[in-house]
Amino acid sequence: MIYLDHAAATPLDDTVFTAMQPYFTAQFYNPSANYLPALGVRAKLEQARADVAAELGAKASEIIFVAGGTESDNLAVTGVMHAFPDANVVVSAIEHDAVLQPAARFDRKITAVSSEGILDVEDLMSQIDDKTVLVSIMYANNEVGTIQPLRRVTQEVAAIREQRRKAGNALPIYVHTDACQAANYLDLHVSRLGVDLMSLNGGKIYGPKQSGVLYVASHVRLEPIIYGGGQERNYRSGTENVAACIGFAKALQLAQMQRKEESERLGELRDTAMRRISELLPGAIVNGSLKHRLPNNIHLTLPGTDNERILVELDRRSILAAAGSACSASDDEPSHVLRAMGISDGAAQSSLRLTMGRETNEQAVLSAIKSLAELASNY
Amino acid sequence: MIYLDHAAATPLDDTVFTAMQPYFTAQFYNPSANYLPALGVRAKLEQARADVAAELGAKASEIIFVAGGTESDNLAVTGVMHAFPDANVVVSAIEHDAVLQPAARFDRKITAVSSEGILDVEDLMSQIDDKTVLVSIMYANNEVGTIQPLRRVTQEVAAIREQRRKAGNALPIYVHTDACQAANYLDLHVSRLGVDLMSLNGGKIYGPKQSGVLYVASHVRLEPIIYGGGQERNYRSGTENVAACIGFAKALQLAQMQRKEESERLGELRDTAMRRISELLPGAIVNGSLKHRLPNNIHLTLPGTDNERILVELDRRSILAAAGSACSASDDEPSHVLRAMGISDGAAQSSLRLTMGRETNEQAVLSAIKSLAELASNY
Repeated sequence: MIYLDHAAATPLDDTVFTAMQPYFTAQFYNPSANYLPALGVRAKLEQARADVAAELGAKASEIIFVAGGTESDNLAVTGVMHAFPDANVVVSAIEHDAVLQPAARFDRKITAVSSEGILDVEDLMSQIDDKTVLVSIMYANNEVGTIQPLRRVTQEVAAIREQRRKAGNALPIYVHTDACQAANYLDLHVSRLGVDLMSLNGGKIYGPKQSGVLYVASHVRLEPIIYGGGQERNYRSGTENVAACIGFAKALQLAQMQRKEESERLGELRDTAMRRISELLPGAIVNGSLKHRLPNNIHLTLPGTDNERILVELDRRSILAAAGSACSASDDEPSHVLRAMGISDGAAQSSLRLTMGRETNEQAVLSAIKSLAELASNY
Repeated sequence: MIYLDHAAATPLDDTVFTAMQPYFTAQFYNPSANYLPALGVRAKLEQARADVAAELGAKASEIIFVAGGTESDNLAVTGVMHAFPDANVVVSAIEHDAVLQPAARFDRKITAVSSEGILDVEDLMSQIDDKTVLVSIMYANNEVGTIQPLRRVTQEVAAIREQRRKAGNALPIYVHTDACQAANYLDLHVSRLGVDLMSLNGGKIYGPKQSGVLYVASHVRLEPIIYGGGQERNYRSGTENVAACIGFAKALQLAQMQRKEESERLGELRDTAMRRISELLPGAIVNGSLKHRLPNNIHLTLPGTDNERILVELDRRSILAAAGSACSASDDEPSHVLRAMGISDGAAQSSLRLTMGRETNEQAVLSAIKSLAELASNY
């Protein structure tokens, strides 16, 4: 089995699962209860929060545990827009649906990307007006793996903040980033990035599914989307999934500890793969910037082929890859990311995504490309 | 250790954990992916949905997997109210905060309960007007364990529906029930109950925390609260927590299979406990109807005592009990449930909740009451 769909799901790390296990069984107590065994569980939950905060260079009180990346994105967008109902939000055209769809419920503008899949910062700046309270730009794209110029965005937004201060406009302007795909490979320090909100997803970093956090800088005003018992400082009510929170923290620590080494290893693997692709599949087109790109992402158009049929054939050979985002894999709409990059629907239907991960080695990648070349040669 | 706080959290059943395990590890695939191993995971997820539906006498398409009871309640209330923005909602005064707080964001009315903690159906009916789209009445209360006259409510609401039809009022009227505390002991067949929406929570039925479902009858109109990739028929986006869904389904099956036997066993245990309480704690007042009550709930006022101090002393003796709902245990507000029953704040501060469960036996309960009597005698 050659698994090349790590952008869709990552296997749970063994040490993460081991760390979670006690909180399913012996340490099952409700962390809001007041007896000592429950206070022990609460302490572990708060340790997990502090561990996450340390990885982000944030305060523990700025970390909200939520059920997955989609919920995190929704809480960021809907939460800010509910706090500022007369304001607008600007998002990039290649955001995940977990940002695009909640944003579409409010006054929102969409900013363009280049044919390389990189945000057009000038266009973004031109979309921001005096009523913009939120800018949501993903850190790295889930389909083509392009890394967005997040620091430039936050620097430009800082200048807008300063202009507003001088002009007496009291409306804040926050930058949110969906960093779900970035956490295995990139720096997540929130102050270095300059972001006010950041979404992370355990299911993409070898942690449990529907675990995740929203980082919310202490100055940010945000309304909850789920109300009740007041857990997570009122931002996300519901008895905490302690096992998932602890698993998420452990997964994030491991991902950040390994990120440089893994980036280097997978970057070399990708370069090897690209060379082999140019040998065996000379007509292949690589989509998205190669320079500003996650090291684990290979996104190809094989002109004239049908990606669905190729994927089925790869599957028969136990090679698992994807046409695009798994979230929208079940519908037949062409990818909004590829469309935003100006790739035709026809080319999109000849496109494949291979996303590598921790257990991927050279043999696996070269074997996958060999199969791909054989299958493409049938067209 | 004597654990008497099953209303706050239940230990994960071993067979449930065993059923979940493969979906953390080997079967980690994203169920929206299209290769065969992912389709296998999807099939198991859909089997879990069908299993839940079978327990409720519902269709599989009426089951939405969500992250916990609180999210389920929020989706019911907020989802319906967003679909009918000009309508109002009627809730009982003893609902969980997961219903009360989202309802408070809309045009909502609160209906009274008796001193026994039972809904006043006449009062409820008088609150419903031509603009009421939703009535939310919990099946059994999480603090005092009282079982609400749900069938009577749904029958009365059916009569209102008929009146509206004749009067040409096209507004539907739905009944939602928070059945999170009921699922271990009561019948959950939605057609027998006559409910349109029902919330269930895995964390209260020996399943995983932040697992749960919202049953939504196919005729109900509901907006999502979390938007994105369109999972769960668009009602709850986000990569599915397959392990949790499978764990929830297994836990629900076990709970419903055992519910009659456990109800009988715990009912007898409660009667034994009540006799011993009247011997050893003659001044104790039992709160809430004894007739219409979950078999595992004992809620007492011990006049003149301080529940916080008693709970600390019990904790020292390794007896774990609660003053009320764990969700609000961390704040100092007196329970809204006890207030609604007309119990004074002073009496509330002398009140305790003991909630039994599968591993509770006679020895444990009698030992807890003996300790309670010793501690109360110090006042």
